[in-house]
Amino acid sequence: MTGVGALLDAIADVGRAPSGGYERFAWTGHDLTLREWFAAEAAARGLAVTVDRAGNQWAWWGDPDADGPGVVTGSHLDSVPGGGAFDGPLGVASAFAALDALRAAGVVPRRPLGVVNFSDEEGARFGLACLGSRAMTGTVPAERLLGLRDGAGDSLAEVLGRAGAVRPDAYGHDPEALARVGVFVELHVEQGRYLADLPADEAAPVAVGSAIWPHGRWRVDLAGEANHAGTTPLAHRHDPMLDLARLITDVRAAAEQAGALATLAKVEVDPNGVNAIPSRVRAWIDARGETEAAVRAVLGPDAAGGRPPSADFPPGGPSTADFLTGTGAAAGTSSAVGSGGARGLRRWGLVEESWTPATVFDPALAARLADVVGRPGSALPAPVIGTGAGHDAGILAAAGVPTAMLFVRNPTGVSHSPAEHAEPADCAAGVRALTAVLTDLLTDPSGPASAVGTP
Amino acid sequence: MTGVGALLDAIADVGRAPSGGYERFAWTGHDLTLREWFAAEAAARGLAVTVDRAGNQWAWWGDPDADGPGVVTGSHLDSVPGGGAFDGPLGVASAFAALDALRAAGVVPRRPLGVVNFSDEEGARFGLACLGSRAMTGTVPAERLLGLRDGAGDSLAEVLGRAGAVRPDAYGHDPEALARVGVFVELHVEQGRYLADLPADEAAPVAVGSAIWPHGRWRVDLAGEANHAGTTPLAHRHDPMLDLARLITDVRAAAEQAGALATLAKVEVDPNGVNAIPSRVRAWIDARGETEAAVRAVLGPDAAGGRPPSADFPPGGPSTADFLTGTGAAAGTSSAVGSGGARGLRRWGLVEESWTPATVFDPALAARLADVVGRPGSALPAPVIGTGAGHDAGILAAAGVPTAMLFVRNPTGVSHSPAEHAEPADCAAGVRALTAVLTDLLTDPSGPASAVGTP
Repeated sequence: MTGVGALLDAIADVGRAPSGGYERFAWTGHDLTLREWFAAEAAARGLAVTVDRAGNQWAWWGDPDADGPGVVTGSHLDSVPGGGAFDGPLGVASAFAALDALRAAGVVPRRPLGVVNFSDEEGARFGLACLGSRAMTGTVPAERLLGLRDGAGDSLAEVLGRAGAVRPDAYGHDPEALARVGVFVELHVEQGRYLADLPADEAAPVAVGSAIWPHGRWRVDLAGEANHAGTTPLAHRHDPMLDLARLITDVRAAAEQAGALATLAKVEVDPNGVNAIPSRVRAWIDARGETEAAVRAVLGPDAAGGRPPSADFPPGGPSTADFLTGTGAAAGTSSAVGSGGARGLRRWGLVEESWTPATVFDPALAARLADVVGRPGSALPAPVIGTGAGHDAGILAAAGVPTAMLFVRNPTGVSHSPAEHAEPADCAAGVRALTAVLTDLLTDPSGPASAVGTP
Repeated sequence: MTGVGALLDAIADVGRAPSGGYERFAWTGHDLTLREWFAAEAAARGLAVTVDRAGNQWAWWGDPDADGPGVVTGSHLDSVPGGGAFDGPLGVASAFAALDALRAAGVVPRRPLGVVNFSDEEGARFGLACLGSRAMTGTVPAERLLGLRDGAGDSLAEVLGRAGAVRPDAYGHDPEALARVGVFVELHVEQGRYLADLPADEAAPVAVGSAIWPHGRWRVDLAGEANHAGTTPLAHRHDPMLDLARLITDVRAAAEQAGALATLAKVEVDPNGVNAIPSRVRAWIDARGETEAAVRAVLGPDAAGGRPPSADFPPGGPSTADFLTGTGAAAGTSSAVGSGGARGLRRWGLVEESWTPATVFDPALAARLADVVGRPGSALPAPVIGTGAGHDAGILAAAGVPTAMLFVRNPTGVSHSPAEHAEPADCAAGVRALTAVLTDLLTDPSGPASAVGTP
């Protein structure tokens, strides 16, 4: 039996850059090392490991094919560039630690328990987050995913072919793997300060997730004319860097105006030479909001000015927005803000790279788990909170899997950074909460499906 | 005897990127291929090739050690990222073509003729332009140069060690190689539209250089706090991308205000992930002007507000600025513009990476060569023009070598771009002009030194 801290310590050096942050990108040598670690931890616990058609690793205690869908927990092991040690690995390490705790407590499960490592959750390599869970659930067609290219110009198909874990010609939707998942619980470090900022009499080291905000990524290409910086008069220049400055300013202003989050954090300058006026600057925009209306407001009116903004989005529906806003007036909010948006970002020629509608985790399951988790020294249930960060749990929920999340307190709220942190005591509390939740789901006599209120 | 077009054609595929631009960076495989081409062209003409302590290649017709300093022509073969086919290679190819023309015409030189390929003129790899000529002339100490690192983190010392052309422990100042150069003539594609915009009755395919503008590069580090783009409230962010937007705008405004050129064309974002607020953005500024006062005006008042701006600069002196402005009032201009500079760039914490004072080519030599070159169908001398682009010729001139430049007409003025161009007829006119100039310098009975008016 290994504590969660010791499990994380074992991989602390894998993919750590000189800056202190992690560079654990899908299918690189570092990622393959982490996958070997996952397989070894599973083997040490006598678990059979399978790899699905999307490259996700599954370690099963019990046989979901023989004994019906199981309870699954886990997260991912890859990182953003310069990422922290907890986003992803805390959920996988806590899964193994909780399994150990279940066995030590002599829990007799009525159904199988799976531990999962989803591949390429961050999307750092191919630009699409939750790549492994999107592929497995068939949310995005395999042929589109296989054609994605990384920064070196290699396609996912080429990369998979070299890595060897999945055959590219078999890659993609895996309904059999999905059918084994009766319920999915993902534990994750909190990526905000909700728990850290609670008053002392409401303190809680762990929260239960209520929803994931809707979230999109867009690319903008700013065209210029390459020329010599030392000889081209200012008036003769077509310098896309000036457009970049306006775009950065516009993105922030649009987010402030819409009451949402929007970020321009990735830039590629071509050719990126000190004395060469760029021929092109490419920038990426990440936008999220508590409601789809808020994200639409960031983007502003569409090019035609008259089409309803909601037509740009995949189905999500007012019910999701209603749940999040509690008002039922999402569409009205959108057009009120959007139509005033002279600074709308759409005029920059946004190219949508991904769109993830709002995910609302099963409210009955969340309430039940909040009671199971509780708060130390209190009769209160655990807090139930939403998040702006995307997760594989959101992809599975959208695919119809009853899903829940647990968040472990983060003292600064900082994430996607070497400064990302969770106290050891809070990590241990996370494992205890996860163990309680799994015990509840594994031993419920009516099965994990009925446990969450769906027959 | 090979025409300049055929010489360029022979290397047209070396280091060409899919974009059509060249990626010929110092000491890479592409650069080594170009060096082999240089050596082979020299060998085909029966010329001995030597490599100086700074890695520059010299092909001598005649023996400068036995027969005194010679006339040298040539340029460089490396490129900026996404560069064109002419900046550099046109000068080297024209040198070989002119040598062929001299021999075909039966010219009997009174002194040796050298063809040179200066290494790493563009500074694309290690961030310092004219690296080979600066090292050879001792303008920058070898130990500083050897410690420069490329984008992959490799030092020049390590790179030289692997390339094998120069021993790192022998690298640097080479007074013997410098002493062999009696006079240096560099032919280059024009990087502006001066010649292309001349009226028909003053048309000229070739100009003679008068001066190189003063030129500097500065780095700016914009600090931020890495965090998750999906969970960090706008008010909690320290996003350095917003500072980048202000800096880009400031750089352009400062250049317009100062009547000079300033460019922000290179950016490094750390970690450069779509959903990761950057921990740091690094940007580089290139600033040039007809006078040092104009460049000082771009930078604005120094941090203390009171120190004379000129104290920041290596010696250059009012005489240079006087020559360029023709007014003698450079210092007054500087403080008039600079003191009003509330938008001065210095407040961004500029770190100087290089400074190259103005270079004034020998006026007597320039006038003499303008007569030798002439204009087709006209009694007018060739135009004599300045340039904002740095060249090895500027480094040699600053080191005391009588130096001249020839510029070949560029129909669009575009340079440092795949669109950089010179018409074949103008390239041929460039070779004829260079041949005439070399004939003049090689056959003058009083020697190349007296040819330029210095005993």
